[in-house]
Amino acid sequence: MQVGNVRLQQQIQFIVEIDKLKSILRQSLLCDGSRRENDAEHSWHLAAMASLLQEYATESVDLVRVLKMLLIHDIVEIDAGDTYAYDPEANVTRAAREQVAADRLFGLLPADQRDDFRALWEEFETGVTAESRYANALDRLQPLLLNYYSEGKSWRAHGVTADAVIKRMQPIKTGAPQLWTVVEQIVSSACEMGYLAGAVPVAD
Amino acid sequence: MQVGNVRLQQQIQFIVEIDKLKSILRQSLLCDGSRRENDAEHSWHLAAMASLLQEYATESVDLVRVLKMLLIHDIVEIDAGDTYAYDPEANVTRAAREQVAADRLFGLLPADQRDDFRALWEEFETGVTAESRYANALDRLQPLLLNYYSEGKSWRAHGVTADAVIKRMQPIKTGAPQLWTVVEQIVSSACEMGYLAGAVPVAD
Repeated sequence: MQVGNVRLQQQIQFIVEIDKLKSILRQSLLCDGSRRENDAEHSWHLAAMASLLQEYATESVDLVRVLKMLLIHDIVEIDAGDTYAYDPEANVTRAAREQVAADRLFGLLPADQRDDFRALWEEFETGVTAESRYANALDRLQPLLLNYYSEGKSWRAHGVTADAVIKRMQPIKTGAPQLWTVVEQIVSSACEMGYLAGAVPVAD
Repeated sequence: MQVGNVRLQQQIQFIVEIDKLKSILRQSLLCDGSRRENDAEHSWHLAAMASLLQEYATESVDLVRVLKMLLIHDIVEIDAGDTYAYDPEANVTRAAREQVAADRLFGLLPADQRDDFRALWEEFETGVTAESRYANALDRLQPLLLNYYSEGKSWRAHGVTADAVIKRMQPIKTGAPQLWTVVEQIVSSACEMGYLAGAVPVAD
């Protein structure tokens, strides 16, 4: 069905296409452990967190850029799929798969918005601005919360260790260092509860 | 588990609590018709749309206020449940149920953020600012797209008429009138396809 002019048609087509993000499943379970989270829910949760935790960003950030970045940061997974953070082999091919996906998906938009969204996604991936460092910190913290409150079911299923989680969480030190205390307390508790393999990591 | 100081503890507790929004089901199906959409997915979709369609807002809007509003506009449904737009009886009690929910849910936050989020939610509900009029327009357009692309399954299940949809979509005329062409074309096509009961409404 054609709606409006070419520009509006492209925008509506993109909006309908990204509905598919609701069907891309992540490895994290919801906090109640009932099922796996999907990318749309994850993106919403991150954006809500970004609104609430801005005071902890290392540098002053433009919140609207952070929010747009978080809302679209996983859209490439509609074509490229979710790559589990603790799967080294899949991560080797991730970047190439996601570039092809970005070409197609952002390419549905009018040129100005295609370039804007593509640039925001690249910025998130490279993490070289205050906004992308803050956004990446939240992208690490959110699954930590879900994995902990769902009693480590996903961690235990994959045999994830406390050391691997601490390593994975490092961007929080860069983008929102005051939130590192949350990481330490959760990982420590998760080790005690047997959610994570290995001993409580020593402070570094 | 206690994390950080009281303020950070309250923020993290709220972030974990709103995970429940992912389990509040709406009547709309995903575009592929596979299942009902939930409130977290809906909120994400609206926020992404707000970033893309800002040029159609009637008045100039502060996008960060629109995005925050859309991200939290359904949080009260964690306690109050989703009220189907085309169910007049349930809508009689909706406001009272949602006020109680807002007290509890936003009350989890530190006072400054509780007041900020509560005010944004009230603003969305009353629709008296440029930002809330634009946000409300999107909140009507998004389920129209989902219902149309899922072949009107939800409309047909509830016997929704074209007239009722046109009436429901009126806030789009106020908040983003250039998008009214999308409403007209979709409703017209939906009538032809038999997704909506009744004849194609005459232009008003």
